[in-house]
Amino acid sequence: MDKLKIGSREFSSRLLLGTGKYRSFEEMRDSLEASGAEIITVALRRLDLSNTGQPGLLDFIDPQRYTILPNTAGCKTVQEAVQTAQLAAAMGLPRWVKLEVIPDPQYLLPDPIATLEATKILVEDGFEVLPYINADPILARYLQDVGAVTVMPLGSPIGSGQGLLNLPQIQIIIEQAQVPVVVDAGIGAPSDAALAMELGASACLINTAVAKAQNAVQMAHAMKLGVEAGRAAFQAGRIPRQVYATASSPLTGLPALGS
Amino acid sequence: MDKLKIGSREFSSRLLLGTGKYRSFEEMRDSLEASGAEIITVALRRLDLSNTGQPGLLDFIDPQRYTILPNTAGCKTVQEAVQTAQLAAAMGLPRWVKLEVIPDPQYLLPDPIATLEATKILVEDGFEVLPYINADPILARYLQDVGAVTVMPLGSPIGSGQGLLNLPQIQIIIEQAQVPVVVDAGIGAPSDAALAMELGASACLINTAVAKAQNAVQMAHAMKLGVEAGRAAFQAGRIPRQVYATASSPLTGLPALGS
Amino acid sequence: MDKLKIGSREFSSRLLLGTGKYRSFEEMRDSLEASGAEIITVALRRLDLSNTGQPGLLDFIDPQRYTILPNTAGCKTVQEAVQTAQLAAAMGLPRWVKLEVIPDPQYLLPDPIATLEATKILVEDGFEVLPYINADPILARYLQDVGAVTVMPLGSPIGSGQGLLNLPQIQIIIEQAQVPVVVDAGIGAPSDAALAMELGASACLINTAVAKAQNAVQMAHAMKLGVEAGRAAFQAGRIPRQVYATASSPLTGLPALGS
Amino acid sequence: MDKLKIGSREFSSRLLLGTGKYRSFEEMRDSLEASGAEIITVALRRLDLSNTGQPGLLDFIDPQRYTILPNTAGCKTVQEAVQTAQLAAAMGLPRWVKLEVIPDPQYLLPDPIATLEATKILVEDGFEVLPYINADPILARYLQDVGAVTVMPLGSPIGSGQGLLNLPQIQIIIEQAQVPVVVDAGIGAPSDAALAMELGASACLINTAVAKAQNAVQMAHAMKLGVEAGRAAFQAGRIPRQVYATASSPLTGLPALGS
Repeated sequence: MDKLKIGSREFSSRLLLGTGKYRSFEEMRDSLEASGAEIITVALRRLDLSNTGQPGLLDFIDPQRYTILPNTAGCKTVQEAVQTAQLAAAMGLPRWVKLEVIPDPQYLLPDPIATLEATKILVEDGFEVLPYINADPILARYLQDVGAVTVMPLGSPIGSGQGLLNLPQIQIIIEQAQVPVVVDAGIGAPSDAALAMELGASACLINTAVAKAQNAVQMAHAMKLGVEAGRAAFQAGRIPRQVYATASSPLTGLPALGS
Repeated sequence: MDKLKIGSREFSSRLLLGTGKYRSFEEMRDSLEASGAEIITVALRRLDLSNTGQPGLLDFIDPQRYTILPNTAGCKTVQEAVQTAQLAAAMGLPRWVKLEVIPDPQYLLPDPIATLEATKILVEDGFEVLPYINADPILARYLQDVGAVTVMPLGSPIGSGQGLLNLPQIQIIIEQAQVPVVVDAGIGAPSDAALAMELGASACLINTAVAKAQNAVQMAHAMKLGVEAGRAAFQAGRIPRQVYATASSPLTGLPALGS
Repeated sequence: MDKLKIGSREFSSRLLLGTGKYRSFEEMRDSLEASGAEIITVALRRLDLSNTGQPGLLDFIDPQRYTILPNTAGCKTVQEAVQTAQLAAAMGLPRWVKLEVIPDPQYLLPDPIATLEATKILVEDGFEVLPYINADPILARYLQDVGAVTVMPLGSPIGSGQGLLNLPQIQIIIEQAQVPVVVDAGIGAPSDAALAMELGASACLINTAVAKAQNAVQMAHAMKLGVEAGRAAFQAGRIPRQVYATASSPLTGLPALGS
Repeated sequence: MDKLKIGSREFSSRLLLGTGKYRSFEEMRDSLEASGAEIITVALRRLDLSNTGQPGLLDFIDPQRYTILPNTAGCKTVQEAVQTAQLAAAMGLPRWVKLEVIPDPQYLLPDPIATLEATKILVEDGFEVLPYINADPILARYLQDVGAVTVMPLGSPIGSGQGLLNLPQIQIIIEQAQVPVVVDAGIGAPSDAALAMELGASACLINTAVAKAQNAVQMAHAMKLGVEAGRAAFQAGRIPRQVYATASSPLTGLPALGS
């Protein structure tokens, strides 16, 4: 079986889905189901921890079906990110974290220095850490060396839907990685997800492209197919690209026709 | 239901598969099945019309399951192409044809003048014609005007696996077409097929990328998923591409944390 | 010397400039000068042939310095284009023509069938014909075969500034051509012009990107440099692209330092 | 005048040239001259510091004409890079340095963590530091904040000639930078250099694409023109890219012709 192994956990689906930006909790729930995702990310800072009696995000997520991956969205510093991860664990969420340290409000690009620092701290504190990074192969190796259980390079800025602008560097990361590489951010359509998987990425994490599609539930299903298509193609071994054509229909030794 | 209508015929699958270049007839048969294709193209010139008693290509194709689309691969002139199509019909094959008129042995690029001429002749002779063309929007309109039931622009040279090099012109063709647009040639991986479908192509025709994959049967399945992913995404309505990021996890009005 | 030969004429500059869309005739004149162009295209239909006494386009063009290349912009049919070319010759303009037959008002894409037909007629009538075409290598060969003195494939739609979207097909045209290949339409910046020349194009024709730049005169000079840069690089023989790095500073056999 | 200001120095040329990989010192000298460069980089580790009496690299460089920018090519650690820079200063070379810390032998990608650390140390030691980095906008800001006088993002791996694969991130770096941005590594042809300058880069550093061209001296001249073309175009203000065409030859109000 073709399982995705991240740290101590194992999954069949290679599509991780975010829970932000949906028009309603119902739409989010239905999109999760259509996507086939087993891992779903939740921004800890979005959880309403007060007990208001109103239904919240977690009421729409079946804990038997999904593994929640807390993320530190909104954290700008090492300290904020570390505290947020620890708070999630204290709440009883799984002791792993998608680590985001993002000081930049415009492009939401991650901080390489702070991300490495926070990864070290959280690994020592017993977390399985999945850091979100720019597509920097050397940084990816640093993170792997300090114990990150995966690396999550961005394809393009969060929510931009621009696809894999960093493709060549993502290829180098995949080539050098000993942990799973999860392409995160920038995927806008199934073709982007399929391409990432064809290159050998282990999984894709998608949020905006599903939540903000005109029909989120159908797009969730489309992304599921795109990830599966790309994985199957990676395993099947694609043809090389070549400049010249090669006839699909070999014609040697055929009887003369016409003219 | 989301049916593909080409001329007088209707199909559920939007993946057309070629039958050339497989390592064996058995592999071809299994790939056809894995692809879910309903239309399969066959080069008339490859058919062994002599009665040798040896099993041939057609013995591996279930006529109840697949609609054969004869193609004129190997034809360099109007006359050759027209005669080949007529011969196919005389053999009892369906009276439609994927029209290829290809004088160029290196890039296998189609002849715009001869293709238009042959289309006119065959339409008048009662054929449903599916012409293979360079991605020229004006030529596509000419062909539509003389009665072609679809236009089939190439993504890149046959068998090259370079994907959709002609993307912007294919977009214009799709925007202007009143008949289905089938992207043909150049698709190397499911991401290419998904991309074509996301742009609004009606279908994809693939041969080399499946037949020459290391595992043809698995790649046939991957292409099926890629086409379905792209079609679903087209219908779901993708997010626009934008330069700046937008946060997946809106954070306004949240309790302060850390720092 | 590295001369550009088009039909019976010879030039030192490989930048052809259009005369449309400038904010004033003075700006046009100064841009022509800054560009170093020797061939300038003029839309015959823009010439004011009535004798109003007002200064017109031709009053700002020094006939000793520039060779006027009349174009058939605005012509939608074979007949219009042929008559326009003949009218230009009757006015005493040089007996050559940039042939445009453009039925499409939105993308301004050229008509392959009508362009070939008009080329035949004008060649027989003694014109040197420079046809504007989509980047179709087979069409380019047809035109060459009927006597066109150059082929002028578009990089992207006129005035769009999108650069060389048709790059791979332009490369094939260059590889196969026996007449000069002039890349026309779509060039938005000197990098586009340089790229076309690096691939082996013989010249570039530019209009909108100069006339509509914020500073047209300076952009004309920039385009001059870009074309010259690309030509020099083509002759110098560029390094191949390769996936892996190669050290600029070879370090073998050096004394140990530091650490 | 349009001067390039790096730290305390000012230059007219925006092309920086490397001195490695030439076939001979004479070819290097002639290429430097043809390029118009004022700043040339020299790998300190390549200098023969023993006094053998044989002519060496420095004998071919006119100190009146060129400012030498020592680089730390071949250094894999903070300590090596810092010591190398200090050694260069001790030899009497200018107290500035192109800082390279590159642990990766295959792609020669720079180490973000070590580069930041070495920059801090060298800035405190009175150096003007020009760090070579991956195209990471957040790292670029860190370096700027600790006193780097420029940032030098790579376009693609050193010597690969792949051009600006990191284009979108380089655009973000330029948008956010308060120091000059010098695009370094990966430029393969003048079109790449022009493109970098059109986007607003302050300068380009090139080595392999000149030294390994078939005709290095002519390519040096081509690169000079490419950089100047791109700079002029940046200042001239290019037209926007747009999907649809716009006629170069406005035709309203013209007399009817033909047909």
